Amino acid sequence: MQILHGRPVADKVLAEVKAGVAALKQKTGVEPTLAVILVGEDPASQIYVRLKKRAADEVGIGSRDFLFPQGCTQVELLETIRGINADPALHGILLQLPLPKGMDEDQAVATIAPEKDADGLHPMSLGNLLGGKPTAIPCTPAGCLEILDHYGIPIEGADAVVVGRSRLVGKPLAQLLLARHATVTMCHTRTRDLVEHCRRADILIAAMGVAGFVKADMVKPGAAVLDVGITRTDAGLMGDVAPEVREVAGWLAPIPGGVGPMTIALLLRNAVEAAERRAGI
Amino acid sequence: MQILHGRPVADKVLAEVKAGVAALKQKTGVEPTLAVILVGEDPASQIYVRLKKRAADEVGIGSRDFLFPQGCTQVELLETIRGINADPALHGILLQLPLPKGMDEDQAVATIAPEKDADGLHPMSLGNLLGGKPTAIPCTPAGCLEILDHYGIPIEGADAVVVGRSRLVGKPLAQLLLARHATVTMCHTRTRDLVEHCRRADILIAAMGVAGFVKADMVKPGAAVLDVGITRTDAGLMGDVAPEVREVAGWLAPIPGGVGPMTIALLLRNAVEAAERRAGI
Repeated sequence: MQILHGRPVADKVLAEVKAGVAALKQKTGVEPTLAVILVGEDPASQIYVRLKKRAADEVGIGSRDFLFPQGCTQVELLETIRGINADPALHGILLQLPLPKGMDEDQAVATIAPEKDADGLHPMSLGNLLGGKPTAIPCTPAGCLEILDHYGIPIEGADAVVVGRSRLVGKPLAQLLLARHATVTMCHTRTRDLVEHCRRADILIAAMGVAGFVKADMVKPGAAVLDVGITRTDAGLMGDVAPEVREVAGWLAPIPGGVGPMTIALLLRNAVEAAERRAGI
Repeated sequence: MQILHGRPVADKVLAEVKAGVAALKQKTGVEPTLAVILVGEDPASQIYVRLKKRAADEVGIGSRDFLFPQGCTQVELLETIRGINADPALHGILLQLPLPKGMDEDQAVATIAPEKDADGLHPMSLGNLLGGKPTAIPCTPAGCLEILDHYGIPIEGADAVVVGRSRLVGKPLAQLLLARHATVTMCHTRTRDLVEHCRRADILIAAMGVAGFVKADMVKPGAAVLDVGITRTDAGLMGDVAPEVREVAGWLAPIPGGVGPMTIALLLRNAVEAAERRAGI
C-alpha cells in the first residue's frame, strides 16, 4: 500500500505557478493579484486566509484584503465584489467561505465576475466544467486529479466511484474524472447497495463527511482510495476512511496529509491562469 | 412491457405551458415571445424551426424570426444575439443548431443572455444545473425526466446508467437523475465492462448514437430503457436500442415516439419560465 502524500505534489504545482507568474511578469509586466474577501471573525477562516496569502506571496502573487466585520450587510459585500470585478489590477477573487449565517453565499459567488473566479465555484465555472471548456476548477477536485496523475494511477477506463455529491467536491470531481475517460458512478445517502458500488471501484473517492464510514470490506483490494471527507471531532480532524482500509487499498490519500495540502496550490493556479487569460496568453 | 409514449406526456406539458402563458398575460399583460434564430438553409433545421414556431403559436407564445443566409458572418450573428438580449419584448432565444460549418457554436451560445436561454445549453444554465439551482434545462434530458415521472417509474434510489456523455443529453441528464436521488453511472466509449454496467441498471439511458447498440443481454429484466440516440440511416431514423430489447425491458421509450415528441414542449416550458422569472413570478 502506497500513501499518496499531497505535500510533494503541492510543491510541484507551486513551483509551476511560480514559474508561470515570473513568465507573465516578464512578458506583460502584469503582477497577478488576488482580492481576498473575508467576512466576520471565524478563527478557522482567518487561519485559512492567512495561509493562502502567505502561499500567494511565496509564488509572487500579490494580494489585497477586503475585510468585513461580522454583521456587515449583503449589499455592502456585493458592492465590494462589483468594485473588484471592475478593477483591472485585481485578477482573481477569493471569497472565503462559509459566510456568516444569514448571508446569501450563492448570490455572493454568482456576483463575482466569472473570469475572476479563483475558487471555481461560480455557476459559469461549473457550467464550463460540465461543457468541457477551459475554466477555473474547484480546488479540492483539482487536487484529487493532480494526486492521481502524480502517482501514476490510471484514470482512463477506470471504474471511479464518488461517494458524496456536494457542489464543492463530489459533483465537479465526477466531471473531471469523466473528462479523463473514467466510468464514473455518483453515490450518496440514498444509494442502495453502497457497499457493492464501492467494492467495484478502481478509484474510490470518499467525500461525504461521515467519519470512518469507508471500511475495509467496502474497498476492492489494490484500489486507489482518496479521502476528502473531513469531520471535526474532539479527537481532531477525522476522514471518511477508517484506518483499517490501509490493509486493503493499493493507494491511499489520507486525512491529514493527502489531498488537503494541495488545495491552496490549486487556488493559486486558478489565480495565475485567470491573469494569463486576461493577458491573452 | 410497457411502451413509454411521449405524445400524451408532451400534450400534458403543453397544456400546462398554455395555462402558464394565459396566467402570465392576465397578471402582467406580458406575452412571452421567443426569438427564433436560424442560420443557413439546412432542410432538417428548417422543419424543426417550423414545428417549434407552430407549437409556440398553439400555446400562445409569440415568435419573431431572425433568419441568416448560409455564409453570414459570426460577427453578424453575435450582434443580432446581443440585440435580442437587450430587447425587453423578447423573453427567450432559440438558436437552432447545428450552425453551418466554420461558425463557432460555443461562442454563439455563450453570447445569449443566460436569462433568455431557452435551450438550456448556456454555460450558466449548465452550471446552475450542476449546482442544483432553478434554471433552463436542456430539452431532451428534461423530456426523459417527464416521461419517467408520468409513467410512475421510481427514480429515487434507482441505479441509473447513462451511456453517452454529450453536453446536450448525457451529462445534463446525469445531473437531473442525481438531483432526484438516483445513483448515477456515466458510461461511454472508453468504459470497460459496459455490458456489466448496463445489466445492473434499473433505468438505462441509451444516448450514444450507435444504431441498435443496446441488445437484450445488456438489459436487466424489468428495467426502464429510454432510447435517445438517433442515427439517420437509409432505412430511416434508428435508435440505440435493438428491437429485441422489448422482450426484456419493463418499460421502453422507443425511437420514434418516445422522448422525441417531448422536446418542443420542454423548449416552450423553458421560454415561459424565462418570461415568468423576468416578471418576478
